Amino acid sequence: MTLEERMARHRQSVDRALDRILPAADQQPSRLHQSMRYTVLAEGKRVRPVLTLICGEMFAAPSAPLVSAGAAVEMVHASSLILDDLPCMDDAALRRGRPSNHLAFGESTALLAALGLLNLAFATLASLPSPAVPSERAGEAATVLAGAIGSSGLIAGQVVDLEAGESVTDLKTLEFIHSHKTGRLFIAAAELGAILGRARPRERQAVARFAKNLGLAFQITDDLLDATGDVATLGKDVRQDKGRTTFATLCGVEGARSLSHELIDHAVSALEPLGRRGAPLQDLAETIRDRHA
Amino acid sequence: MTLEERMARHRQSVDRALDRILPAADQQPSRLHQSMRYTVLAEGKRVRPVLTLICGEMFAAPSAPLVSAGAAVEMVHASSLILDDLPCMDDAALRRGRPSNHLAFGESTALLAALGLLNLAFATLASLPSPAVPSERAGEAATVLAGAIGSSGLIAGQVVDLEAGESVTDLKTLEFIHSHKTGRLFIAAAELGAILGRARPRERQAVARFAKNLGLAFQITDDLLDATGDVATLGKDVRQDKGRTTFATLCGVEGARSLSHELIDHAVSALEPLGRRGAPLQDLAETIRDRHA
Repeated sequence: MTLEERMARHRQSVDRALDRILPAADQQPSRLHQSMRYTVLAEGKRVRPVLTLICGEMFAAPSAPLVSAGAAVEMVHASSLILDDLPCMDDAALRRGRPSNHLAFGESTALLAALGLLNLAFATLASLPSPAVPSERAGEAATVLAGAIGSSGLIAGQVVDLEAGESVTDLKTLEFIHSHKTGRLFIAAAELGAILGRARPRERQAVARFAKNLGLAFQITDDLLDATGDVATLGKDVRQDKGRTTFATLCGVEGARSLSHELIDHAVSALEPLGRRGAPLQDLAETIRDRHA
Repeated sequence: MTLEERMARHRQSVDRALDRILPAADQQPSRLHQSMRYTVLAEGKRVRPVLTLICGEMFAAPSAPLVSAGAAVEMVHASSLILDDLPCMDDAALRRGRPSNHLAFGESTALLAALGLLNLAFATLASLPSPAVPSERAGEAATVLAGAIGSSGLIAGQVVDLEAGESVTDLKTLEFIHSHKTGRLFIAAAELGAILGRARPRERQAVARFAKNLGLAFQITDDLLDATGDVATLGKDVRQDKGRTTFATLCGVEGARSLSHELIDHAVSALEPLGRRGAPLQDLAETIRDRHA
């Protein structure tokens, strides 16, 4: 199976799981459930859950719980997209090719949908225990996810991003923001796969380092696409960072591109302890490199 | 020890645990952490975690994890207060005797603080496993908490409350709103104590039924105090429900009072299967009755 086929299969499994886990659109309160489904099930790259699934398969994690864990990661991601787009945050109008959640459902429903998704992600991890997944492993997964989200993870990145606003002028702050806003959830996505596959500490460390570098590289390619792409292709507002510092504005398009390549090289080196088993992750990294080739 | 003394001791334990679990006010990002601490640590009745602790002690739950579980419940409650007060929700200016969180810290920080608290509650439950608390019990606690918060719990109550707005005219809708917005977290608070104390299903059911009735009675006394109290005593806006339906406006002050008494009677009867062990909960119920005696 080619990586493309494998990724498509993973995306499909995750989408099916999300459809099953999310309350039905006609279940009361239906407007809330529609709002939750609207952002999660919209067309997306599903790169985080794909990372969970690839890592889990590397360590022969049991399939159904692995897909559920991937779905939990994607719900957290979708929750963060809804919140980022709110008027008091980035005030964005377009997301995943459609009006952002609060424009479609109103601000209060969007906010409650984001909370509902975060909560459902934890409910999903709490429901993992089974003969194939001992409770302590599900608990470890919840600890990792909560760490990635919390006030030293995703939320910290968003706070610093909002506080810095348009005044970010150094690479260090920009890296802090994105290693928290993007990197931490990438790391958790990879670690969840490793945890469910009972990877050894060394192996888990390797996929975490891989994911950290991949996440930042992924963010930089997003910035590059924002600087050079168009709305129709990306499905979200472009140049919305106008006036705001991105890797592209700070390092220039060429500088950002070479930083991204460097990070992908780091990601690939991190896989060394895994030997040939790391090949699927190496392939994944190359697809990120190709995004802005 | 009188119930008053016992409750004061429980409140103290919970406040100490919250102070320890919440990131320090000077830890980065400090504004976020200040915002989280601002609402959680403000003067409050702590009725939900006290309920957790009383239930847990009834079943001889291990003390430290029990207090942590109570703290998790209080963090979820504080998170819901911050969100309820936001401009796109109830747009309230005063809470726990001080400006509401978004007025003190700005809307985006308040929102992220609320999320951070919800996340920290799950992190706290995920950290419970120890020789005294098997992982599966911590997982069960997380399932119960997530169920109470989710789109068939607290969040559902808030959605229906916002949708109904000023047009609620029937007791059934009002009961739906409050049995979800208040009742579900009361039930979870009690069940967490029962779970950590390894209560039998019948016993757990009894405390859950108790908590359900107590929660609704508690909400009605809140409405009554809102209708008859003053800002200085309550520490939050009074008559803010003006134009909005409450138990007091729908049933009149006397009708609401008698409904509350009836619910407290139901709560007390629910304790029957527990025999004399239920006495502390019975005492707790009487303090709620006394609130508007």
